[in-house]
Amino acid sequence: MIYDISMLIHEDMQTYKNTVSNKPVFKNNANHSNSSVHDTSVTLNLHTGTHVDYPLHMIENGDTSDSENLEPLIGSAKVLDLTNVEDSIKVADLMRFDIVKGDFILFKTKNSFSEDFLSDFVYLSKEASVYLLDKGIRGAGTDALGIERSQEGHPTHKTLLGNGIIILEGLRLKDVDEGSYHLICLPLKIKGVEASHVRAVLIK
Amino acid sequence: MIYDISMLIHEDMQTYKNTVSNKPVFKNNANHSNSSVHDTSVTLNLHTGTHVDYPLHMIENGDTSDSENLEPLIGSAKVLDLTNVEDSIKVADLMRFDIVKGDFILFKTKNSFSEDFLSDFVYLSKEASVYLLDKGIRGAGTDALGIERSQEGHPTHKTLLGNGIIILEGLRLKDVDEGSYHLICLPLKIKGVEASHVRAVLIK
Repeated sequence: MIYDISMLIHEDMQTYKNTVSNKPVFKNNANHSNSSVHDTSVTLNLHTGTHVDYPLHMIENGDTSDSENLEPLIGSAKVLDLTNVEDSIKVADLMRFDIVKGDFILFKTKNSFSEDFLSDFVYLSKEASVYLLDKGIRGAGTDALGIERSQEGHPTHKTLLGNGIIILEGLRLKDVDEGSYHLICLPLKIKGVEASHVRAVLIK
Repeated sequence: MIYDISMLIHEDMQTYKNTVSNKPVFKNNANHSNSSVHDTSVTLNLHTGTHVDYPLHMIENGDTSDSENLEPLIGSAKVLDLTNVEDSIKVADLMRFDIVKGDFILFKTKNSFSEDFLSDFVYLSKEASVYLLDKGIRGAGTDALGIERSQEGHPTHKTLLGNGIIILEGLRLKDVDEGSYHLICLPLKIKGVEASHVRAVLIK
């Protein structure tokens, strides 16, 4: 069973803070009324839709897509049901779960149930990101378009990205139950960028 | 062992027929000299780089990404060494291989050894596409940006796409030996389009 946990990319989709200039724009270059082929181009912000962040997104002179290792992007993952959490995921919310070294943790929150951008989206608190760093996780996935908000200096991003932990954003986990899965989240191979789109799936 | 068989996306990369308007264009929206984040957008033709074609690309009113089934995009695949083939892959070139129902066949040709667009790129002949249809393959992958050229009416595309066979284009197979692998080629989830980008890998 394959669970598609990716956000559908289309021109009216949600964007971070609903910024209109970050909505995808499609351009039809040819179609069957004027050509023998149908051909489209798209303009996409690298942080719209399901994507991986690289350190440069938040860290000056940080690593880009060029230094990516594909190994940790294929492997086990744990979906945590945090649908009852409001505002931010705190250490106390995570302590009831069995989180161990090497885990890729996906947070299922109320964000997954809205196709509109939630200005109060549930995010990962700085303290919880340090807790997960100490646990030795390899990746953290969120069903918001950003893994944090309202934290001066972006400490959650920096705690994770500064320590080689993958950040996967824009997941859709509504139809996935809490539990263990096999995750595939391979980003497009783009040169020297701070984020890249991905078709993310879970396999049970 | 993971083999990355995707083409690197960058502004100087090859495009079909070297069409300049199909080269990716990157726009930096923010960086660490003027913001606390680095943020980029990209404009991409859906047929530039490694991608999957859907029927609408060549067939009027054909299916789009909306009707995609993810199951056949994860599974076994066979790399065929056709590096000695010139011009086009013919039935005689394929007969020496063990090709069976359900196979996803990847053609390793001289195309994989050039980062420049080859105007005489090796393509799959119409007759060979019918041969593969009769074998019952589930997918065909090429290391050219198109699976055919110089065939009036695009019969290779239509034979495959018109019969539910996946076409994967723009692979890089230089570093992969002939043999059997586990293929992952999950396209970005874009609404209603005729092609979509993919990070394709082979696992041994």
